[in-house]
Amino acid sequence: MIEIRIAKSLGFCFGVKRAIGIAQEHKGSVTIGPLIHNNAEIRRLKADYDVDVTDEIEEIAGGQDAVIRTHGIEKDNKIYLQNKGVNLIDATCPFVTKPQNIVEQMSTEGYDVVIFGDSKHPEIKGVLSYGNERTFVVNGVEELQKLQLNQKVAIVSQTTRKPDDFSKLVDYLIRNYKEVRVFNTICNATFENQDAARDLAKEADIMIVIGGKHSSNTKQLLSICLQECEDSYLVENENDLEDAWFKGKQICGISAGASTPDWIIEKNVKKIQLIKT
Amino acid sequence: MIEIRIAKSLGFCFGVKRAIGIAQEHKGSVTIGPLIHNNAEIRRLKADYDVDVTDEIEEIAGGQDAVIRTHGIEKDNKIYLQNKGVNLIDATCPFVTKPQNIVEQMSTEGYDVVIFGDSKHPEIKGVLSYGNERTFVVNGVEELQKLQLNQKVAIVSQTTRKPDDFSKLVDYLIRNYKEVRVFNTICNATFENQDAARDLAKEADIMIVIGGKHSSNTKQLLSICLQECEDSYLVENENDLEDAWFKGKQICGISAGASTPDWIIEKNVKKIQLIKT
Repeated sequence: MIEIRIAKSLGFCFGVKRAIGIAQEHKGSVTIGPLIHNNAEIRRLKADYDVDVTDEIEEIAGGQDAVIRTHGIEKDNKIYLQNKGVNLIDATCPFVTKPQNIVEQMSTEGYDVVIFGDSKHPEIKGVLSYGNERTFVVNGVEELQKLQLNQKVAIVSQTTRKPDDFSKLVDYLIRNYKEVRVFNTICNATFENQDAARDLAKEADIMIVIGGKHSSNTKQLLSICLQECEDSYLVENENDLEDAWFKGKQICGISAGASTPDWIIEKNVKKIQLIKT
Repeated sequence: MIEIRIAKSLGFCFGVKRAIGIAQEHKGSVTIGPLIHNNAEIRRLKADYDVDVTDEIEEIAGGQDAVIRTHGIEKDNKIYLQNKGVNLIDATCPFVTKPQNIVEQMSTEGYDVVIFGDSKHPEIKGVLSYGNERTFVVNGVEELQKLQLNQKVAIVSQTTRKPDDFSKLVDYLIRNYKEVRVFNTICNATFENQDAARDLAKEADIMIVIGGKHSSNTKQLLSICLQECEDSYLVENENDLEDAWFKGKQICGISAGASTPDWIIEKNVKKIQLIKT
C-alpha cells in the first residue's frame, strides 16, 4: 500500500474552522455572505444544520440569528442590523477584528491611517469602515505616493498580503514621515499551507492537491508542488483521482486549498489507500 | 578671475551653529566636552568669549555657567549638575532632544525601545539614559536579531545614520513583532552637504574641500568630489592652497566638512579670489 503523508498545514485556516463551528452551533441561522467558497460545504451546512446564506442584509428579519463571516462586515451595516433587532453572531476572524480595532483607535488618536489591501475586498471594506476621512486604502507604493499624509501615520495590512509587499510600503513611509506606527496584521495561514506543501512535495513521488479548480490559492499550491514533484495533480473530490497516476509510487503527499473542508480531504485519503500501486 | 561657486549646503549644520551662538551669548562659560572637533574654532571661542572646555563634570563648580553641547548629556549627569547648583545652558541639538524625549515616553508607555546607533557615541549615551532596562542600543541587524523583545517595540536612530541601514532594522522588526513604532530621527544635514558637493563637483573644474585632514566626514566629501572632478583638493586652511592647482581653471567649487566654521571658509574664498589662473 502507498504511504500517505499529510502536509503539516493544509485546508481551512483557524478563522474559517472557528466560523463553521460557530455556524453549526446556531441551527437555522443565516450567514451574511457565504461562509466559505466551497459549495459542498455550504450544502452540508444547509442539510445538517439548516444554515442559510444571504447576500442582502435588508432581507434579514428582526429576531433572526445572523452569522457575521470571517471577513467581518462594515460598521454601519452592523449598527443597522443591531437596530433592527437581528441577533448578530460574530464569527469575524480575530485576525480581522484586530485591524478593525487598530484603525478605529488610531483614527481616534489623530493618526492618518493607511490600509494596505484591495478596496473591493469585503475584509477591507469592513476594516475601512472603522476609520474616518483620514483613513486610506492603498494597493501598492504608487498609490501611497499620491497621498498627502500628516507626519503621524499608522499602517495595517489585509491579512492575506505578502510581507515583502507590506515592507515596501513601510519603507516608503518611514523615509517620508516622522512617526510611523506599523501594525503587522498579516496572517501566516496562507504561507503556512504553501510552505508545508513545498516541503512535502520534496519527499513525495506523487502529490495530490485537493481544492476548487478555479480557486486561486489551490492553483498556487499546485504550481508550488509541481516545482518539486512533477507528478502533482489537482482534484476537486475523490472522484477525480485516477488509478494510473499511482502506478509504481511509494509516497503520496496530500495538500489542500484554504476552502477545502477536512471531510473532503478524508474522503480522498480513504480512496487513495484503496488504490493499487 | 576664477568663478567661485559655494556648495548649496556645506560646513556647520543647524545644531552646531546654534550651539556656538549659545556659547557666545554666555561669556566665561565652560562647555561640557568640546563644542566641535575644530581646534581653531575652540581657540577663537576662548580668545573672544572666554569660553572654556572641560571633560570632567566633577570640575564644574556650583553657580558656574555650563553649556551642554549638541550631543546632549546623560540624564544622571544633568541631575547631578542641577543638584550641584550649576547653571546649565542647554545647547543640545533639537534633533537630539527629540529621540531623548521619544525614548523616555515610549519606555514609560511600556514599549521595548531599540536605539540604532553606536553605544560609545556621546549622543547615544545621552539618548539611552532616558530609557529603562528595556531600552537597547544596536549597531545593525545582527545585534537586533539577538534581542528577545516584547511584541510592542519602538525604534529611533542616531541622527547621523544612513536611512538605508535604519530601514533594514525596521524591516526586521515589522516581520517579527506585532506593533512597531518607528520614529525617523535621522538628520539630513550630513547627506545634504554630500549631495550639494556632488552636484557642484559636476560643474566645477576644480573643487576645494575645507576641513580637518583626519575628519572622516571631510574625507568622505573629498572622495565624493573626486568621483566627479579629478582636480579636487582637501585643505585645512587657506595656507594649504597652491597656486598651481588653479592654472587654466574657470570654475572653482567650494565645500566644507561639518566641523569647519564659516570664517575659515571665507578666508579660503578670499585667498582663491586673488590667485591668478
